[in-house]
This record gives sequence, structure tokens and C-alpha cells, in this order.
Amino acid sequence: MSKNYENKLLSLGISLPDAPAPAANYVPYVVVGDMVYISGQISGDANGRINGKLGENFSVEQGQLAAKSCGINLIAQLKAACDGDLDRLVQVVKLGGFVNCTADFTDHPKVINGASDLMVEVFGEAGKHARAAVGSSSLPLGVAVEIEGVFQIR
Amino acid sequence: MSKNYENKLLSLGISLPDAPAPAANYVPYVVVGDMVYISGQISGDANGRINGKLGENFSVEQGQLAAKSCGINLIAQLKAACDGDLDRLVQVVKLGGFVNCTADFTDHPKVINGASDLMVEVFGEAGKHARAAVGSSSLPLGVAVEIEGVFQIR
Amino acid sequence: MSKNYENKLLSLGISLPDAPAPAANYVPYVVVGDMVYISGQISGDANGRINGKLGENFSVEQGQLAAKSCGINLIAQLKAACDGDLDRLVQVVKLGGFVNCTADFTDHPKVINGASDLMVEVFGEAGKHARAAVGSSSLPLGVAVEIEGVFQIR
Repeated sequence: MSKNYENKLLSLGISLPDAPAPAANYVPYVVVGDMVYISGQISGDANGRINGKLGENFSVEQGQLAAKSCGINLIAQLKAACDGDLDRLVQVVKLGGFVNCTADFTDHPKVINGASDLMVEVFGEAGKHARAAVGSSSLPLGVAVEIEGVFQIR
Repeated sequence: MSKNYENKLLSLGISLPDAPAPAANYVPYVVVGDMVYISGQISGDANGRINGKLGENFSVEQGQLAAKSCGINLIAQLKAACDGDLDRLVQVVKLGGFVNCTADFTDHPKVINGASDLMVEVFGEAGKHARAAVGSSSLPLGVAVEIEGVFQIR
Repeated sequence: MSKNYENKLLSLGISLPDAPAPAANYVPYVVVGDMVYISGQISGDANGRINGKLGENFSVEQGQLAAKSCGINLIAQLKAACDGDLDRLVQVVKLGGFVNCTADFTDHPKVINGASDLMVEVFGEAGKHARAAVGSSSLPLGVAVEIEGVFQIR
């Protein structure tokens, strides 16, 4: 009775990248019991990093796509943490979203929705998570969005 | 042998709001085993959002009241996660506080104390938590403070 | 069959400070089951706080030393949480690093490596952690770096 999240990803036209390597001396995820802590994933895809500053040179719509790319990278790491079997996911527990933005930007929730919507599209009820969305004066390598996550698996 | 945190809230003159709905496509909390992860609660009360930027147009005292409102909203969500029985709380584990502030602001700890003091006033020893307090260049909808939390319940 | 992390610290020339007291009304760590949540540790050592803003008046190398001091303070708190026996550490699970920096700063990963490298030098495989590194418009008391952490102990 597979939930077959991989088929869901296919139907959404999403292909997972190889789980991105961390930008520094740490690991992409740590599994403790049935919990997976995934390192902050920066916005980017096969075409490279997605850089920008919301409120300055980057629209909310662009920010949502950047956040979606972070979500895809989180799912790629989750799959690796599950030894390739995404159906071991029990619950997306918590996302922490950081938006590279100006001092007067206010649409952080809309931006991080790019990742939150993805989790619900792919995982349904199991994709509904707690979340924080905040602004950062700057982010690593100039990326527009960074998102970390906590997941429960079986 | 109820701890009767509800009476404590009453004695402090605090009435819990309905657990605020999230500002976007996610859920206010996720329960995993005996842990509750609560989404970032933004500053605001029955009179509306509490907006401001510390170091610019908002005093530390105003910031403390904003942080207290986040704390009240966290307790409202906690109560919902406990099916209405706050006495199921075992421990406030961790608060993550984000202060909307200027680049030269330095009083983040004093601001977030508005929430930390509340937790200890209401829950006593069970309210003593680990904490991080940092500055954000901006926060959702222009609020002054956002605080997320992790709680242990029975 | 002690792992003897204390000897490792000695061999690295690192002496742990007394576990720093929190800057406000909360506790330095909370233990829940086998997990330890440690409050955000700010950069500083026996000579006082390490203040600065990356991208303005503080080099990446200075930032790395600041991050290392946060790491040392985290280890001091961890030791206290383990009743003095660091060998009870099972795994450094997650570090959350905040860099006090300008809007155009991009080297957050290099800065937080100051703490990540320390964890791996001291704890080896058990020191490899998930991580997020982001920018903050400002940090408590003007410090250059703040790092919080989650650890698994036995």
C-alpha cells in the first residue's frame, strides 16, 4: 500500500536533483530516532543558484520559485535520509524559512509558501507543517531564500 | 492535582485569544510524540497586529509588549495542541525569537524577555526554556516580533 | 572505553569557560529525553564579547574566530548538561548560526565553519551536524555571531 510520493512528484513535473552537497564543513542531514534534521537548503536548481533580494531586485513570484527550489532540495535530502524510499515519510514537522530582503519587505509568508505549497502538493496531509518565515539582511552566496526542515520518518 | 495554569493566566489578567490562524499555507502546530512544534507567532492581539522596527520607531518597552503578545499567542496554540488542557504541559523547551530591528540595535534579549518572563510567570519551573534571540531585517506584514517554540507535553 | 573528548580539547589547546550565564530570563539548556536544546551562545571569551559586523568592520577570519568561540561556549553548556561528562555525547545534531552582517555579505558558510570545524575536530564523526547559516541585521549586544544547537546525549 505504497503512498508513492515519487509518482506524485512525477505528476507534478518535478525531478529531484542529486541531494545537494553542503556549502561547508557539515552534513546535509542527521537522523535521530525517527526524526530527520535537514540542513538549510539554499535556493537553486540545475541551472545554478537563485540569487536576489526581495524588495529590491526580486519579485514575490520569483521568491516563491526560489522557495520552491529550496523545498525540492529538502525533499531530495529527505529521500537520501530515507535510503531512497520517500514513502517512509510520516510527517513534515517544521520548516524554517529565511528570506533575503530589504528592511521594508513584508511578504515573507507569500514567499515561503512556495515551499509550503509544494510540501502539501506532494505529501498531502503528511505535508502540513509548522513554520517560521523571517527576513535576513543577507544569505549565503547571495541566494534569495534558505529553508531548513525537521521531518518524521518511519 | 491540577497545576491549573488557566487560573494562573486569569490571575495575571491574561485572556487567551482563539488560537490565531496561520498567515499562509501551513498549520499552527505539529505534535510528534510528546513534542509540540508551534509555528512562528507574530506580534498582535485583539486590537490587531503590533508593527514596528526596534531602533527606529519602536521602543524596547513596546518591543517587550509585542514579544509578550507572541508568547500569549504561543500559549493559545499550545492549549489547542493539548485539546484545551494546558496542564498537560511538561516543559517549555525552546523559544526562537526574531526582532524586527535596525542594523545597530543591540537589545534583542530585553525585547524577547517579554515572552520569556511570561512563560515563567505562567508555568513556573516548567516555563524555563532554552532560547535564541536574533535580529531580522524585516518580518512578515511588518510586525515587530515573531517567536516560534518547541514544547513538551504529556 | 572513554572517548575522552576532554583530552581532545586539551590537545587542541581549548579550555572550556564556565558555562556562560544567559543574557536574560531563560536557561542555558533544556534536556528532553536524550536531546539537549542549548540556547543561542553569543561570541565571546575570557577577554569579553566579540563584537563586529561582517562586511563592514570585521573580516571573515575574525568571524570564524567569533564562531569558534560560540562553539566553545556551546560545548561548555553541553558539558554542564551532561553533568560534567562530555563523553555522554552521542551526536551533535543541529547548529543554527546567525551572522551579524551587512546586506551584501555572502560568506556566512565560511564564518559558521569556525564552529562546525571545531565540532568535528573535537568530536569526530559524532561532531558532524546539520546546520543553517543565515544573516542577521543585528545581534544581541552587538556580537558578531550567535549559534544555537541541538545535541543527542546518552
